[in-house]
Amino acid sequence: MTELRIAADLVDRENEKRAKAHEADYAALGEHLSRRNVDIDAITAKVAAFHVAVPSWGVGTGGTRFARFPGLGEPRGIFDKLDDCAVINQLTAATPTVSLHIPWDKEDPARLKAHADALDLGFDAMNSNTFSDAADQQHSYKYGSLSHTDAATRQQAVEHNIECIEIGKALGSKALTVWIGDGSNFPGQSNFTKSFERYLAGMADIYKALPDDWRLFSEHKMYEPAFYSTVVQDWGTNYLIANTLGEKAFCLVDLGHHAPNTNIEMIVARLIQFGKLGGFHFNDSKYGDDDLDAGAIEPYRLFLVFNELVDAEHRGVKQFHPAHMIDQSHNVTDPIESLISSANEIRRAYAQALLVDRSALENFQQENDALMASDTLKRAYRTDVEAILAQARKKAGAAIDPIATYRASGYRKQVAGERPSQRGGSGGIV
Amino acid sequence: MTELRIAADLVDRENEKRAKAHEADYAALGEHLSRRNVDIDAITAKVAAFHVAVPSWGVGTGGTRFARFPGLGEPRGIFDKLDDCAVINQLTAATPTVSLHIPWDKEDPARLKAHADALDLGFDAMNSNTFSDAADQQHSYKYGSLSHTDAATRQQAVEHNIECIEIGKALGSKALTVWIGDGSNFPGQSNFTKSFERYLAGMADIYKALPDDWRLFSEHKMYEPAFYSTVVQDWGTNYLIANTLGEKAFCLVDLGHHAPNTNIEMIVARLIQFGKLGGFHFNDSKYGDDDLDAGAIEPYRLFLVFNELVDAEHRGVKQFHPAHMIDQSHNVTDPIESLISSANEIRRAYAQALLVDRSALENFQQENDALMASDTLKRAYRTDVEAILAQARKKAGAAIDPIATYRASGYRKQVAGERPSQRGGSGGIV
Amino acid sequence: MTELRIAADLVDRENEKRAKAHEADYAALGEHLSRRNVDIDAITAKVAAFHVAVPSWGVGTGGTRFARFPGLGEPRGIFDKLDDCAVINQLTAATPTVSLHIPWDKEDPARLKAHADALDLGFDAMNSNTFSDAADQQHSYKYGSLSHTDAATRQQAVEHNIECIEIGKALGSKALTVWIGDGSNFPGQSNFTKSFERYLAGMADIYKALPDDWRLFSEHKMYEPAFYSTVVQDWGTNYLIANTLGEKAFCLVDLGHHAPNTNIEMIVARLIQFGKLGGFHFNDSKYGDDDLDAGAIEPYRLFLVFNELVDAEHRGVKQFHPAHMIDQSHNVTDPIESLISSANEIRRAYAQALLVDRSALENFQQENDALMASDTLKRAYRTDVEAILAQARKKAGAAIDPIATYRASGYRKQVAGERPSQRGGSGGIV
Amino acid sequence: MTELRIAADLVDRENEKRAKAHEADYAALGEHLSRRNVDIDAITAKVAAFHVAVPSWGVGTGGTRFARFPGLGEPRGIFDKLDDCAVINQLTAATPTVSLHIPWDKEDPARLKAHADALDLGFDAMNSNTFSDAADQQHSYKYGSLSHTDAATRQQAVEHNIECIEIGKALGSKALTVWIGDGSNFPGQSNFTKSFERYLAGMADIYKALPDDWRLFSEHKMYEPAFYSTVVQDWGTNYLIANTLGEKAFCLVDLGHHAPNTNIEMIVARLIQFGKLGGFHFNDSKYGDDDLDAGAIEPYRLFLVFNELVDAEHRGVKQFHPAHMIDQSHNVTDPIESLISSANEIRRAYAQALLVDRSALENFQQENDALMASDTLKRAYRTDVEAILAQARKKAGAAIDPIATYRASGYRKQVAGERPSQRGGSGGIV
Repeated sequence: MTELRIAADLVDRENEKRAKAHEADYAALGEHLSRRNVDIDAITAKVAAFHVAVPSWGVGTGGTRFARFPGLGEPRGIFDKLDDCAVINQLTAATPTVSLHIPWDKEDPARLKAHADALDLGFDAMNSNTFSDAADQQHSYKYGSLSHTDAATRQQAVEHNIECIEIGKALGSKALTVWIGDGSNFPGQSNFTKSFERYLAGMADIYKALPDDWRLFSEHKMYEPAFYSTVVQDWGTNYLIANTLGEKAFCLVDLGHHAPNTNIEMIVARLIQFGKLGGFHFNDSKYGDDDLDAGAIEPYRLFLVFNELVDAEHRGVKQFHPAHMIDQSHNVTDPIESLISSANEIRRAYAQALLVDRSALENFQQENDALMASDTLKRAYRTDVEAILAQARKKAGAAIDPIATYRASGYRKQVAGERPSQRGGSGGIV
Repeated sequence: MTELRIAADLVDRENEKRAKAHEADYAALGEHLSRRNVDIDAITAKVAAFHVAVPSWGVGTGGTRFARFPGLGEPRGIFDKLDDCAVINQLTAATPTVSLHIPWDKEDPARLKAHADALDLGFDAMNSNTFSDAADQQHSYKYGSLSHTDAATRQQAVEHNIECIEIGKALGSKALTVWIGDGSNFPGQSNFTKSFERYLAGMADIYKALPDDWRLFSEHKMYEPAFYSTVVQDWGTNYLIANTLGEKAFCLVDLGHHAPNTNIEMIVARLIQFGKLGGFHFNDSKYGDDDLDAGAIEPYRLFLVFNELVDAEHRGVKQFHPAHMIDQSHNVTDPIESLISSANEIRRAYAQALLVDRSALENFQQENDALMASDTLKRAYRTDVEAILAQARKKAGAAIDPIATYRASGYRKQVAGERPSQRGGSGGIV
Repeated sequence: MTELRIAADLVDRENEKRAKAHEADYAALGEHLSRRNVDIDAITAKVAAFHVAVPSWGVGTGGTRFARFPGLGEPRGIFDKLDDCAVINQLTAATPTVSLHIPWDKEDPARLKAHADALDLGFDAMNSNTFSDAADQQHSYKYGSLSHTDAATRQQAVEHNIECIEIGKALGSKALTVWIGDGSNFPGQSNFTKSFERYLAGMADIYKALPDDWRLFSEHKMYEPAFYSTVVQDWGTNYLIANTLGEKAFCLVDLGHHAPNTNIEMIVARLIQFGKLGGFHFNDSKYGDDDLDAGAIEPYRLFLVFNELVDAEHRGVKQFHPAHMIDQSHNVTDPIESLISSANEIRRAYAQALLVDRSALENFQQENDALMASDTLKRAYRTDVEAILAQARKKAGAAIDPIATYRASGYRKQVAGERPSQRGGSGGIV
Repeated sequence: MTELRIAADLVDRENEKRAKAHEADYAALGEHLSRRNVDIDAITAKVAAFHVAVPSWGVGTGGTRFARFPGLGEPRGIFDKLDDCAVINQLTAATPTVSLHIPWDKEDPARLKAHADALDLGFDAMNSNTFSDAADQQHSYKYGSLSHTDAATRQQAVEHNIECIEIGKALGSKALTVWIGDGSNFPGQSNFTKSFERYLAGMADIYKALPDDWRLFSEHKMYEPAFYSTVVQDWGTNYLIANTLGEKAFCLVDLGHHAPNTNIEMIVARLIQFGKLGGFHFNDSKYGDDDLDAGAIEPYRLFLVFNELVDAEHRGVKQFHPAHMIDQSHNVTDPIESLISSANEIRRAYAQALLVDRSALENFQQENDALMASDTLKRAYRTDVEAILAQARKKAGAAIDPIATYRASGYRKQVAGERPSQRGGSGGIV
């Protein structure tokens, strides 16, 4: 039995207020698109079928190394977090799964599963943590985990990842995401080659424990928390990992983990071409791994990533089913609002990419008509698809305007009463 | 008497084909905007009044240090260039002025003025060149111009700039833009302080020759052609220049001249606040000074720049009339098409910025409602304003679809017959 | 009475072991330099007179937003921190002053002063904190401090800074450093101009409280903790601040606070030229504000910064006495060792810069002999000045090899016994 | 018979002047190193055996897209270029081979070989050019070469590369370097996947024509001349190429072809580990592909690259013989001087890397003693090895001070008399 926290009739009432304007917008867009030979309802159906996973850690207020400023009603644990995730999905119908982070979300799997079931939520990829020390941990990760010079520390990290697989099996997850902070802060501190050999050996041990219908995602990142070198620093190294481990191993692309100016959509294309794109951690950034809301800074870049995904579908790439996950840090907003908004922005980019006239594009590319090829993408991108997104939500029983509906619901105030307020303090993720 | 190169009835015929769809789009957008309490015709009128200058050097095919691949019908000189510029303005009604570059565009001012008058074109800021050596030049700029260690070379550079002012006076220009390539390729090659002192002294001499109703624009750039240090490397130095010279001196912002990740819109805001924003060289870029078409790479960034300009108007900033100029290198497109498209993209960003609900934005800012403040900008940005741009063009007698109309006109083929084809060759600007 | 924690005779014994090799190195270098017409003892004397302040927060283990991994014997408070600072100065004779951070280092000024006196330490610039919330604080800095939209929050930040001045007056400090994290994470979140106006008004209030013989240092930073815009984002804005406030206001340059590829030494030169260089926060970085040990990543860059300082002295710049401070985060090393090493590296860069043949350099610059100008710097830079640094230390009673001597002293083990061990945890600075 | 252009007795006389100081420096360094258990003569012997190839295009003055400012005595063709290269090798004994660029260096192979033999020069890797159009070329590379959408253009590019192999076979070269400028300036202009498929197919055709004892080097570059996407954009793509083609295919690393902040030495390590490091194009840079003199900007980075090479030797990596080549653009110096200096700097980095105490380093790495590991590298790096470099040159009959000796020789003045002076002009490489 679904136990949603926002009353269904509130959603209805809020939708009712906006129905007329929405219908006018949807009709006008439908007419416009029909002049471009596009069937709006077909696009809406595709958008409605597109989902993105929400990270359990994303519903708590994030922070930096300098400070964390908690908001009201911070979730006290994974059960509260699932409640918050359910609100996001209720209002967007875009986020039916949650990605867990162990050890923070470690609870009795049966209770977890029951709670999620009641909220109509499923579980996406499991995430291990070997970038900070848990309270009861024998060996410290100060100097690395899977690539540590000490065998016992590496073994501990391997076992932790295997434990994450075990938990995930009980919950119905089908993937493990491994991101490690291993690296160095000084030239000379670590031997690049030996570190990577140790990492590969540890990952091979984890891979062996992976069920046949699971996928293993490795995630690269240029820097942070290591500031001179990082063991899995870019997609080149990430590809070597996936290729070395085997056919269940894939590369995860976090949009914020690249060098300045990097053409990320081209990396996506290369990984698709060589059969190793596992999926995404969506977010946006201006400087480093800023973990800002998807689409907040460079929306055209997000569109160009989706353009590659739709192009791959269009070209009929085999066995192509990348995982879509959000990974953000919400430092100055209500995390629920940011995740609602981000799920919408991700769908927006997908909807825009679906509008690209691919046959025209192909001709312009063949003829080296750079200007019209560019314009073909821009024409799709500049189409205001908000009415399509709203329609997909509305038809799924979610909100035409999910942020306004969320605010009208008083959910934040309500949980603020239930969950004790936190003190701020020096930085960090939760 | 206006002697336009594209037949007016061709434009009419092409507009006729697109009129019905355009009217439907404009009406639908008008209705949508009226629900947002925006009067579409008021926006269209503002857009129609917005102009951007075209650079004379932009109508020739550009190149890199590796190669230049000329197209058909390359302009042979400034008279051909003006013809091309007239086509851009005829089809967009957005570019009534041309910015000249001396010595390349040096011709008898009376003839130039007559030719421009016949084409309904005026002259924007004059541009001097001391970053390459002219054939007849006594002192080389290999090691600098206004900041050169040799006094005679500096004097030559000063005189060249004064000559540009003289030519501009004859043509009706009201501004001089000074961009120099001076800098160094090696640590130690030049003394930063002495170089800048020499630069400032030279600029003071030029400033003295400036008529009272002119403005002097200095332009900063992080690097290229100098690859270790550049004398006018950023807006900080540029501000010092404008502040040292006097009230007719202003900073010019070229969007591609900044360090990676720089928040350019904030620089724009700072220069406005301290009364020193002179204007823009519009273009887009991904890596360095790529000089790509405006809006081609990061359209949201272009919007955010215009958001500052409209915000300044909204706040009633005094004596605020920045110059708008395009500065691009068209290496793989027909330059006329790229300039048409870029003028449209610049107007698009302006139209979107006009749609921002500034009263709502102000409230969200005051309340630190980051999510809704962001959404307020995004809502304006994602509005498809193409119908507004088309309406502004149509009402001015220009083309609903200027690229398609240009292609239908056969102009490029026509001038290709008149102008001998060029050989390619190793790189450079024209 | 000085109460140093490392026995003087241990230092002597350690020096004794290395004396012969050191003397041979010093003599050989002296001979070599005399062939270059350089008097080694004069250089040594200048190096010995060069000091750099140690930050109180630097003797604790630092962290990132992901984790902090404490070491043994972490200082429990400012008295422990001063003890650690005294060890650094005892072994290097390079760091006789400490820079405090309020509120963390807030204690009875009389007791603080007495403790410092006993350790032969003085106090450098005071540092305020408005980038995180203290436990007892009325208004949160979540959305800014000096630039906050709320007047009461701004006032609280102003008062905190004035309190820092008051504490500093009691301790003999002569400067206040203001770094704020204010900025925004979303386009639209804050109005750039109004934020900066509020910041300037707050700083003016602080400036008014500044004693006549004090200096006010404002510090710019490109990003972090704000990830879209930062109020004091670069030296251009920093200059505007110092210039607006008055003659006691100066710009502080933290080497890690710039955009990628920025020519920092040129910024130093510009600030010197316009009379606004206040001083430095030394550290090194590869990606962002990595806060790594000075000279660890790009030692030539550090040299080039000192080359500007020595050049300014050489040119006889008036009233030129920049403050030298270290600001680093020691995540994987013993902080005392990192600070010892960093102080040495900073002195190394200074010593190398002193060896530049400035008369030759000037000639090469005048003649545009780029290759020999570059070589003149490189020749000074590649000179192994370790013997000069060791000699300066030895003559001051400090250690020829301070790291080895520190390790031999067993200090860390000793304080580990006195100070309870800490648990790690999610990130942050201490 | 060797026909060197600088009289041997001039070299002797110049060496004689510097012999005494050099011997003192060498003796002092030898003593110092013996205290570190290093045999200076063994290091000198290794340095003397280290060679780096000079690019034929490097002896002409380079330029940017804005301008090229030729110097005196510019080489008129490949024979003049070989003469200049011989001078570099005569004075450094470090550059016995030249890397040719076709079509510019295309001449009768027998004559070329004879001329090179007479100058004691050999031929290193051949370089093809498909980034600009030759005068007589049928298909233009404006829109790409090996990845062009048009089959005939691709075929032309393949045939040109095969021709380069043929020429190289006649000259004794053993490698072909393929760098292409293919890419796009606009999102949408080219299909990333199809472009790369076409590239791989073309490269496979070239690979088939490769003799068994040759190597094929592919070279990646982030951007320029393409400013939105580049087909071979980074080492990840480069690895995929080499891996796809076969065991004679390797990756070439140009130090200036990476994103800002990239850890290049780690890429070197990865390529070594996976058996695909082909070699280097040495140069230095601050912003983009600045092509400045090796070691001029970040000498520590150059050292860290060599540290990986020496480490690989130390670990006994099999079949490890990377190619060492210089690729620079000399815009403001005498190219011969820059190449002399750069060859010295490259050897300097190698010499410093040889001084690393690898056994100590390994222990520090194993113990996670980051500070001492870093210091172990820095200790080697800061050793002034100039005397070792000079000794290696002197023993080979080259110059103790090659720049001074070159200047004393009057070579530039002499060839300026023989070779007509050039006019400057807009940019480009020669």
